Amino acid sequence: MPKNGVAPRPLGAGPRATDVGEIESRFMAAAIRLSRRNLGRTGTNPAVGTLIVSPKGRIVGTGVTAHGGRPHAETVALAEAGEAARGATAYVTLEPCAHHGRTPPCAQALIDAGIARVVCAASDPDGRVAGKGFAMLEAAGIAVTTGVLAGEAAGVMAGYLSRTFRRRCHVTLKMAVSADGMIGRPGEGQFPITGSIARGHVHALRAQTDAIGVGIGTALADDPQLTCRLPGLEQRFPARIVFDGAGRLPLGAKLVKTAPAVPLLVATVLEEAGARAAALRANGAVIIGAERAGGRLALPELLEDLAARGLGSLMVEGGAEVAQSLLADGLVDRIWLYTGPHRLGTPAIRSPLTSETMPEGFRLTDRRMLGPDRFEEWVRDN
Amino acid sequence: MPKNGVAPRPLGAGPRATDVGEIESRFMAAAIRLSRRNLGRTGTNPAVGTLIVSPKGRIVGTGVTAHGGRPHAETVALAEAGEAARGATAYVTLEPCAHHGRTPPCAQALIDAGIARVVCAASDPDGRVAGKGFAMLEAAGIAVTTGVLAGEAAGVMAGYLSRTFRRRCHVTLKMAVSADGMIGRPGEGQFPITGSIARGHVHALRAQTDAIGVGIGTALADDPQLTCRLPGLEQRFPARIVFDGAGRLPLGAKLVKTAPAVPLLVATVLEEAGARAAALRANGAVIIGAERAGGRLALPELLEDLAARGLGSLMVEGGAEVAQSLLADGLVDRIWLYTGPHRLGTPAIRSPLTSETMPEGFRLTDRRMLGPDRFEEWVRDN
Repeated sequence: MPKNGVAPRPLGAGPRATDVGEIESRFMAAAIRLSRRNLGRTGTNPAVGTLIVSPKGRIVGTGVTAHGGRPHAETVALAEAGEAARGATAYVTLEPCAHHGRTPPCAQALIDAGIARVVCAASDPDGRVAGKGFAMLEAAGIAVTTGVLAGEAAGVMAGYLSRTFRRRCHVTLKMAVSADGMIGRPGEGQFPITGSIARGHVHALRAQTDAIGVGIGTALADDPQLTCRLPGLEQRFPARIVFDGAGRLPLGAKLVKTAPAVPLLVATVLEEAGARAAALRANGAVIIGAERAGGRLALPELLEDLAARGLGSLMVEGGAEVAQSLLADGLVDRIWLYTGPHRLGTPAIRSPLTSETMPEGFRLTDRRMLGPDRFEEWVRDN
Repeated sequence: MPKNGVAPRPLGAGPRATDVGEIESRFMAAAIRLSRRNLGRTGTNPAVGTLIVSPKGRIVGTGVTAHGGRPHAETVALAEAGEAARGATAYVTLEPCAHHGRTPPCAQALIDAGIARVVCAASDPDGRVAGKGFAMLEAAGIAVTTGVLAGEAAGVMAGYLSRTFRRRCHVTLKMAVSADGMIGRPGEGQFPITGSIARGHVHALRAQTDAIGVGIGTALADDPQLTCRLPGLEQRFPARIVFDGAGRLPLGAKLVKTAPAVPLLVATVLEEAGARAAALRANGAVIIGAERAGGRLALPELLEDLAARGLGSLMVEGGAEVAQSLLADGLVDRIWLYTGPHRLGTPAIRSPLTSETMPEGFRLTDRRMLGPDRFEEWVRDN
């Protein structure tokens, strides 16, 4: 029985599946769910899922990219399948890698194991791989089907794909707004807009993200830690990033105090920050040199530099000014919007967006209730 | 007067320089020296040097990539030159960047400043840039000369170029051997082969490197810290990497104890390390998933994963087994060899290489005495 917990019964044996396309989609959906398990824990390697399915429709091997990034999902699944891989179909959420190191590339491993057919979701935009994995498989006489649930798979690997292909972070803007569209009250620090279920949801999402960012205004007003504080997730440490052009983050801030345990990056303009940048560095922060353009931090450049450091997915948690800048520069790829049930009244700080005033180009892809709060995911059409 | 300390006298006015080529080389050599100043401190951006030279041969602006990576050298030099940049020649150690963010690309900044001619050393292999910077300059009517001291400049930026172009770390193997070709005595831990001047030299080189690696054997035998311990360099923190397939690094090791202050990465095979990997992670180490192939760690894959994290230059300090593996896989780009004046006799551990038994394909590029010890640099021909 597969040890990763995917039921070994033929997935296609449930509600009547009459065409191959539906069966393929259901296996791929299972592979994508599997891949999510290690999301945020595979370093700079993509979180891929693989199922090996026998000709009779039985799952004989499952794999997901290991913690730390290697071995890759295909290797894990083939090892589990052993001889049963011969003649089987491999469902892989990303085009198998094709370049040689000391270990064989995953495409070669699939060939060597006697796989008869490969069904893929997303393609790898990495210049060394794109199309080459498919070509290697086809040259070996393996039937290849591509693009099955490509969008869903690409959503899971958005950080990896953005870092590798666009060479900048994939940005998710997380906002919590009150029923009347406010994000807080001036001078009152962190104001509870949503309940404990929504907060737990945020912590779980943090654990799947490479980096969490806030503007210096939010850092000063809320003194957040931006760590994952859910049982079992304490060891998942996304880096924290403060957009802090002038280097105003105090050395006593919780973000700085926790820097020895969880990476802290401060994006700052050296000319403005001066000795404060050095003091932050001495207290464990990594200083990222930033520039200003038109009074604002040059965010595209910053997102490039973060990607070059291996940070693919960035979740920006506040505040309104950073959100406005990212939206104005067209840098937001996804929005996670939590809407609480209460009105804040005035005086309060208005959110740059609400469910009703979503910027153009974003499409609702998920909506659900988290206790009394509403969660929505909006994804930018490319 | 330029604030970066390069003398403002015309460089070409020293010993008689009769042809343009010699003058160009001398200015470029100065730009390369300048670029070294911030090597190891520019994050994922390359350490570039720029001189702006007036038609009369006077240096009117100097720049080097800022700590933290931005602003870039050209921006700094142009700001210093101001109006004097009009009609001047810019000496840049790397092709100016050509892609837009919020700030103008460096090629555009040179055009806007009225630069008449650009002399470059290395070209940027970054897919977004290669040749595009030159094309942008030439389209604006700027004369471009390329390839002046390209090798020297590429040597300084070897880490950046390797990470960006080959997508793996540039590897320098550092060895200290006794007069009779030994690296230590079995069971005696860190054995002094070289003197204090050579040790200071090593610490200075560490500060210019993105990452320092050792095998687990050396980590266990020597219990090293692998930090920079020279006055003024304490804040230059290359990451430390232990090649430790089985996860044997003890939690009490100095490398682990210093993990909160200086990044520690442990490359380990999860199947072998098991709970020890989790314990190391809980003590602040970043776990990099590695694989074995033929009994050895799969080093090419590991060097790729380190590069994806933004680590361009890796200096491997020991021991013999890791050195052998890297040499066998053709992964060593450069060797820094320190040879002490004393013989160790037997029993002792033989070095995989000495000045007399250098592997094929390496060319001597530097040799000098550091007190009683001899230092040699050998570079692999590509």
